[in-house]
Order: sequence, then structure tokens, then C-alpha cells
Amino acid sequence: MPRRLDVPELVDRARRGEQPAVARLLSLVEDGAEAALREVAGALGPGTGRAHVVGLTGAPGVGKSTTTSVLIGALRAQGRRVGVLAVDPSSPFSGGALLGDRVRMGEHATDDGVFIRSMATRGHLGGLARATPQALRVLGAAGCDVVLVETVGVGQSEIEVVGLADTTVVLVAPGTGDGVQAAKAGILEIADVFVVNKADRDGARQTVRDLRTMLSLAEPPTDDGWRPQVVRTVASRGEGVDDLVSALDAHRDWLDGSGERRRRRRARAAAEIRAIALDEVRSRMEDLRGAAGLTQLAERVLDGELDPYRAADELTGRLGGSGR
Amino acid sequence: MPRRLDVPELVDRARRGEQPAVARLLSLVEDGAEAALREVAGALGPGTGRAHVVGLTGAPGVGKSTTTSVLIGALRAQGRRVGVLAVDPSSPFSGGALLGDRVRMGEHATDDGVFIRSMATRGHLGGLARATPQALRVLGAAGCDVVLVETVGVGQSEIEVVGLADTTVVLVAPGTGDGVQAAKAGILEIADVFVVNKADRDGARQTVRDLRTMLSLAEPPTDDGWRPQVVRTVASRGEGVDDLVSALDAHRDWLDGSGERRRRRRARAAAEIRAIALDEVRSRMEDLRGAAGLTQLAERVLDGELDPYRAADELTGRLGGSGR
Repeated sequence: MPRRLDVPELVDRARRGEQPAVARLLSLVEDGAEAALREVAGALGPGTGRAHVVGLTGAPGVGKSTTTSVLIGALRAQGRRVGVLAVDPSSPFSGGALLGDRVRMGEHATDDGVFIRSMATRGHLGGLARATPQALRVLGAAGCDVVLVETVGVGQSEIEVVGLADTTVVLVAPGTGDGVQAAKAGILEIADVFVVNKADRDGARQTVRDLRTMLSLAEPPTDDGWRPQVVRTVASRGEGVDDLVSALDAHRDWLDGSGERRRRRRARAAAEIRAIALDEVRSRMEDLRGAAGLTQLAERVLDGELDPYRAADELTGRLGGSGR
Repeated sequence: MPRRLDVPELVDRARRGEQPAVARLLSLVEDGAEAALREVAGALGPGTGRAHVVGLTGAPGVGKSTTTSVLIGALRAQGRRVGVLAVDPSSPFSGGALLGDRVRMGEHATDDGVFIRSMATRGHLGGLARATPQALRVLGAAGCDVVLVETVGVGQSEIEVVGLADTTVVLVAPGTGDGVQAAKAGILEIADVFVVNKADRDGARQTVRDLRTMLSLAEPPTDDGWRPQVVRTVASRGEGVDDLVSALDAHRDWLDGSGERRRRRRARAAAEIRAIALDEVRSRMEDLRGAAGLTQLAERVLDGELDPYRAADELTGRLGGSGR
């Protein structure tokens, strides 16, 4: 492959499933340079192909990477093409993903029906919200049937990321927290499928029971609604993974049948547009210098000259409303 | 207390330590009505009094609430006035904090030297970033010596919240994840003090060792820098809590001596101004209707008429740059 390719040609090659072209496009997206993102977005078009986007989330240590890995194996055994985006929450200071995921994903590294990318999200949430949908489009263009988006943790940022998925899978481990903890983290409402991983451990039965109880207490779905499924797995031994694939497929079929897929994708597009626009506004804010700059305004707040609302007014007043 | 009080009078009463006035102000802040927030901000002034703001974070189940509770007890035993903000990550759907925290905090409920508020952060991160600094000002005005800000999880949003603290405490539990998991979650860089809670459990020693190893591998502090401390606790039995108080005090003294406190507070003020301004911009975006509205733009992206960048341009072009 030549050292430089123009974006439309990269997209053509990605559509033919060429791994290096897919990797290059994902790098362009991840780097997040405004001009490149715009060009990639223009060349890819808005769709994500036939890809079923599955978000996997859960607390650190619950076994997301292992589950992702065995899920890839099960989907590949059925001949499906699989993309994986492992989204690490950025460290605000160092950025950068560690090696762990890639090591565990190693067995799939030479399979040309699998596209794996560990996304380091540098800086703020806006960057992540902006890069991920583009990365999904790249993987859709490459013909992925399923794209797994793995996120660490169950905080607000992860909720926003899994909001990008057609199907959201929440992993929980037995005994690490009771039902109240799960509900506190706000995960009951976002999960389409629960996975109780490490189901051979003490407390697994209780955790499944707690989840089912809480789900039954939650608002019952309408007739054509979806009732979240609870699947037990021991991912490290591959147990329960076929059940998980079945649950994912059942949810995909429901999405198609109910019209919910269009609704979710519209919400995703709106979130993406909002993120891009806010990012543009945020960068205009950071670019302001002098008396209207953030540092100066912050100093004035600390010195008691200005309350933060008036400081914010000064800031928005200087942004300018005209487009690019 | 009369049913309606004007904000300046509430602030006066809060400054005299009257619990109901503090509670009312916190409610105003939490409700997040723009006009009320502006009025409270104006009446309180920009400072947080003498309050040492301590952020506590860690994965669900690690014992944050229990640690917070025994920490309150230890600080009260020294005669210090304590505020607590328990920040639950919002469920994007239901909002609302569960009962757990309050139950565990119950023993302090009748102590008029303790102010406890469980903040349900409705909706987006911006709301949290906007309400929390105001709540800190309320508690500072009420004469708190220490304010504990407890957040669930270690995702991006929590990192942003603990960014509000003078001192950040990260709790980890033995055996729930190795050092790689901790580092993956981006917590090494944000912690001023680590607490290995449940230190009577298997693996505690190893977890302490892992943390110390990773800290020693991290960039060494400059001569006047701070080296994060690792404290072992069994919060449920109150063990190690005095060590934790000592570590917090040591960090507070370092902040004062090094000038770091001013730097952190400036960063906090800048983040607050940015959050308020972005919130204003976001609400202008949501208010746009018709062809430039988000839903319409999202439909056009789904239909392939527009790529998301062009859609975002249409959106920012319509925001208008003039202040309120």
C-alpha cells in the first residue's frame, strides 16, 4: 500500500475489506483532526451498513475483554464479520490505552474477518462522542455484520457511549455489589441484555435473582416492548456465550420489527451532530484570549470580581454565531 | 421558618449554620433553574470559605459510603464541621438517587455540625458540573471545614467531578482488579490519596504493593511535589480512618504551602465557567425548531442528505452569538 492515499480511495479499499485501509481510516478518525474527520465523513456517507452495533459495558474487572474475545470467536464460527472498538476512558493527563485488551484479543489478530481497534480517547468526552460514530461508519463500510463497542466503567460518559449502540449489554460480576449498587449506577434502564459473568462464583444465583427482581419492579414493557434478558456466562471458559449471541440476535430482530432501530439511530445522529457542534463551540471558547479568555475569567471569579454566571455570559457573548 | 424566603436571607441564615436554610439553598442549586442558580451565585459570592474539598471516588461496591460515614465521625470527633455531597451519576432516564446512602448516613442525620446532601444529577453531565460548584459554595458559606464529595464510579464524568476537589481520594478494593485495571480506568493520575478498603480481605497486601509499584513507576514528583499516599482501611470497623484523616490533612497543608490550591481552584473556576457557558449553548441548540432543529437535522443525516459535519455547521450557524 502506498504511503499516502486519498480518503476516497481508502474508503474504496475499506469497502473491499482491506485491513490496512480500515486501520488507516480508524486512525484518521481517532486522531480527530477536524479536516480529516470532515473528509472521512463526506466520503463514507451517513450509514453504518448492515452492522448491528452492540455496546458492552460494566465495571473494571468484570470480564468485558474476555467476553468480547469469546463473542468474537462465536460470531466468527458463524461466518459473521466482526468489528471491535475498545473505548478506554481517557486519562485526562496521559491519555492512551494500555496493552491489556490487545493482548487478550491477540488470538483474533490474524483473522481478516475481524477488525479490532482500541480507541484511546484523548481529552474530553466530546472527542469520544465525535470519533466513535465515525469509527462505526468505517467498520460498517468494511462490511461488519456486528460491531462490539467495549467501554470501561458505567459512568455518565459510558452511558453516552452505549447510547450509540443498537443493543446495550451490561456485564455484572457476582458478589461485587448488590442490586442497589447496580441500580445506583443507572444501568438498569440502559441494558437490553444483562450478562452475569463469572457465573461459577458464589453469589451468581443471587445476583441473577436480584436483577430479575429489579427488572420486574421496573416499568413493565408495553405489548411490543422489549424485556431485558439476563444471561449467565463464564467467559473465561466460553460458557453461555451461545446464549449471549442468541439474546443479541433476538434483540436485533426486535429492533427491526418494532421500528425501534430507526428511533435509536435518529437519537444517535442527533447526539453526534450535537457533539460536533459543541466541540466546535468548545474549541472557540478555548481559543479566546485576553480578558474574555477562560483563564482570565477564572482569575476574576477567584478574586471575587465576577460570579461564574456573569463570567459565562462574557464568554458566550464573545463566541460569535456565524458558521465556519 | 416562613415558607418563602428570599435568597439573600437564605444565605444569611446558612452563614449562621441553620440546617433548613442550607437544605433549601442546596435544593435550589440542585433543581438547576437558571434564574435561581444565578441568584444564589450572586448572593453567595465566588469563594468556598475555608472548606477543604475532598473528592472520594471508586467503583461501585468498594465502600465509599461506609468510608464517608466513618470519616464524618472522625472529623466530628475533632470538632470539625463537615459537609457531604453524594453525587450519583444520573440515570439518563429516571434520574433520582436511591435510598442506600441516606440509610447509611442516618447516624449523622441529627448532628447539626454535619450537612449531607445526596445529589441526583438529572440529565446530562453539564447539569452536574454546574450544580456541584454552587453546592460547594453553599456548604462553604455554612462554615464547613471539610466537604466530602462522594461519586460513584471512575468514568470520565467522575474524573470531571473530582476535578472539583482540592484533594482526591480513590478507593480500591482488594482482588477486584489488578493494577492494570486501575491504571486503565485512569485513576492513577487523579489520586492524591489511595485507600485500599476492606484491607482485611485476601489480596489487600498485593493491591497495596501493586499501587506502590505503579506509583513508583509513574513520573516522580518534583522536590516540592506530592507523592500520593496509600492508606489501608477497614471502614466497616473504623480501622485506618485516623490514618486517612492524617493523609487528608497532610495534603491540605501541602496544597497551602505549594500554591497548588490556587492553581486547582483556578482550574475549577474555569471548568465551571465553561460548563455554564456550554450549558447555555446546549439549551439554545435544543430550543431550535424546524429545519435547523436537531431532530430534523438527524433525519436528514439518516436519509443520506447531509453528513453530520454539515449538519453541525447548520446548527452552530443558527445559535447566535449575542449574550442573553
